[in-house]
Amino acid sequence: MNEGPIQGNAVVGQSGGPTAVINASLAGVIEGLQNVGAIGKILGMRHGVNGLTRDNLIDLSDTPASMLDALCRTPAAALGSTRDKPDLAYCQRIFEACRRHDIRYFFYIGGNDTSDACRIVNEVSNEAGYELRCFHIPKTVDNDLVMNDHTPGYPSAARYVAKACMADSCDNASLPGIKIDIIMGRHAGFLTAASALARRDSDDGPHLIYVPEVPFDLERFVDDVAKVYDSLGRCQVAVSEGIQDTSGQAIGAMLIQGETDAHGNVQLSGSGALGDQLAGILKAKLTPAGGKPPRVRADTLGYMQRCFPDPSPVDVSEARGVGRFAAEVAASGDVDGSISIVRTNDEPYEAGFKRIELSDVAAKTKHMPKEFIKGTNDVTDEFVEYAMPLVGELPRFAKL
Amino acid sequence: MNEGPIQGNAVVGQSGGPTAVINASLAGVIEGLQNVGAIGKILGMRHGVNGLTRDNLIDLSDTPASMLDALCRTPAAALGSTRDKPDLAYCQRIFEACRRHDIRYFFYIGGNDTSDACRIVNEVSNEAGYELRCFHIPKTVDNDLVMNDHTPGYPSAARYVAKACMADSCDNASLPGIKIDIIMGRHAGFLTAASALARRDSDDGPHLIYVPEVPFDLERFVDDVAKVYDSLGRCQVAVSEGIQDTSGQAIGAMLIQGETDAHGNVQLSGSGALGDQLAGILKAKLTPAGGKPPRVRADTLGYMQRCFPDPSPVDVSEARGVGRFAAEVAASGDVDGSISIVRTNDEPYEAGFKRIELSDVAAKTKHMPKEFIKGTNDVTDEFVEYAMPLVGELPRFAKL
Repeated sequence: MNEGPIQGNAVVGQSGGPTAVINASLAGVIEGLQNVGAIGKILGMRHGVNGLTRDNLIDLSDTPASMLDALCRTPAAALGSTRDKPDLAYCQRIFEACRRHDIRYFFYIGGNDTSDACRIVNEVSNEAGYELRCFHIPKTVDNDLVMNDHTPGYPSAARYVAKACMADSCDNASLPGIKIDIIMGRHAGFLTAASALARRDSDDGPHLIYVPEVPFDLERFVDDVAKVYDSLGRCQVAVSEGIQDTSGQAIGAMLIQGETDAHGNVQLSGSGALGDQLAGILKAKLTPAGGKPPRVRADTLGYMQRCFPDPSPVDVSEARGVGRFAAEVAASGDVDGSISIVRTNDEPYEAGFKRIELSDVAAKTKHMPKEFIKGTNDVTDEFVEYAMPLVGELPRFAKL
Repeated sequence: MNEGPIQGNAVVGQSGGPTAVINASLAGVIEGLQNVGAIGKILGMRHGVNGLTRDNLIDLSDTPASMLDALCRTPAAALGSTRDKPDLAYCQRIFEACRRHDIRYFFYIGGNDTSDACRIVNEVSNEAGYELRCFHIPKTVDNDLVMNDHTPGYPSAARYVAKACMADSCDNASLPGIKIDIIMGRHAGFLTAASALARRDSDDGPHLIYVPEVPFDLERFVDDVAKVYDSLGRCQVAVSEGIQDTSGQAIGAMLIQGETDAHGNVQLSGSGALGDQLAGILKAKLTPAGGKPPRVRADTLGYMQRCFPDPSPVDVSEARGVGRFAAEVAASGDVDGSISIVRTNDEPYEAGFKRIELSDVAAKTKHMPKEFIKGTNDVTDEFVEYAMPLVGELPRFAKL
């Protein structure tokens, strides 16, 4: 194994759904590489590997520190992102582009599909006997990467969800009724669970939380809501966009005309259909005979969860840190990998980074562990203790 | 006319859709009254006049300053709100409740329906020869009260819309496609227009803005989007929930099964139907023959517009100020009225308050003036100059 840096250029790209801090990871990679003398140019891929294969690159070598700081306050993917999921042939084209541009360092910021692309590109370069140090840098609001305490992007999205649900609980108490908030998370319930951070007092919402890990039963859902509504005169419900029936069929997907992306994922976000459908069902089922239907509203929190410009300070710092750490590890020798966040202390919260193997994380999905799930419609205190240190300070509201 | 305060109790209530600062107005009324020796108790109506007529009141007389400050940071209606729109008989019950509780000061925070309730209660008390000093305190995210430069609640909602659209423009540039953001405003386009505050550079979104004041033509809409999409490869569109066709029929209402509130208003918020419908139309119309449909997404910004806990500092200060001013005017003599915000200077922005007649504002709706509207799909620089000082500092994002 080669020790230390190898002579050549570096490339960095962003992939998948944007987050509030994916640009902080980009800034971290750039600043981590700027100190490495062996590295010629630091190149940015426009729209991920799609840009790389078309030689659509931007020179980031001399990005000033002020711009790096500004990137850390900028949501979404400043280089542009892509939904392309490269297969072997595509990865061969990626590798050819790297060889063409004398690239020896390859950094790709994204979720589990992105780590899989890194893994394949790495294999292709290994087979060609070309030293390409491939690094996956984690990013996903879903928090569904294995081998990570949590992933950059999640804390800021969780912060938005918590603040939104806090305010919405006040709104729901002002004008009592039933309020459904649809929250992102196709397979993993971590983001929906973050709605529990909104609670301060026993009557605060959300009163019910539905994650994809627990099979969703429509009759039980209606009963749950009726019980809370009867007792409090109101009910705030957090529902994951990814709720599934007992057979694993996504409830939202059944309601939405099946557009799929290149990864075969049905489009769940960017539509209000699931919330509207659930609201309609509750209104119909909970209208007393001859009486007035209850006031039922649904909000689909939408893209603001991933890009609202109020990131968690912990998240910004860690997202930048994983980027810088990846650059440092890549410069240290002929290694590849992904970077994992490891929690080293609970109170006060402390965390560090470590390199893990690409194959450990690639194309795998983490779900909410059992100890975070309470019955069929709530999360545990253990989850709250896990998530609360990540989101930064939350507001405190007055009650009369 | 009686000079100075009259001996008796005061009551204050909140009505209509909550806002991020309606509690600041409540705090202003309380602190304004606390100094008036003639006033016995300061009572709060639980859920507006609905609570008052049922003697559901809370004693706010000794609310400490720390609680008043905390109220200014608390979204939604801390006393509870109501959608009741009192008719004459209801207003007579309100008046009887005031007499029963020896109430001589009546403060009601809300929109134009609320000012109309104040007007009727005032008339009932005048006819009975009972001195009741009735004050309407303006509140509405729609900014649609006449005789006001703007209304408390609007600046914070506009701030949320601006920040959301800024971030969403970055998101849309990251993963190019067509993005629709549905924004509150049943009849007035001020809040949708605030999306224009998101723009910094010429290619920033939103690229098209549709307000209810301009008749919405579906074919023209599709053409507009196609033009932007062809030229930029992406398109972000801000659409008011209240867009209407040439006959004044609300497009959203046509798509939503007609639930109406007590004011006869069709429910437009709390549903994603309008956005989903427009997205479906664009997808169908803009799919090239034999080609792939464009990526079209819709978010309905929803209740976060009125309650997200990131109020405009100007708004908090003014909302508190109108409440305090109403209390001071009420204590000054036998008068009734509403409070109006008057802009006294443009740069730097300065504003003051004045009393206006209840009949001037009651049940009237302000629309976007012509000079704020640009063609059929945009707003003018004049609007941006009007709105920008209200929303507080907006973030600045980096571009590569």
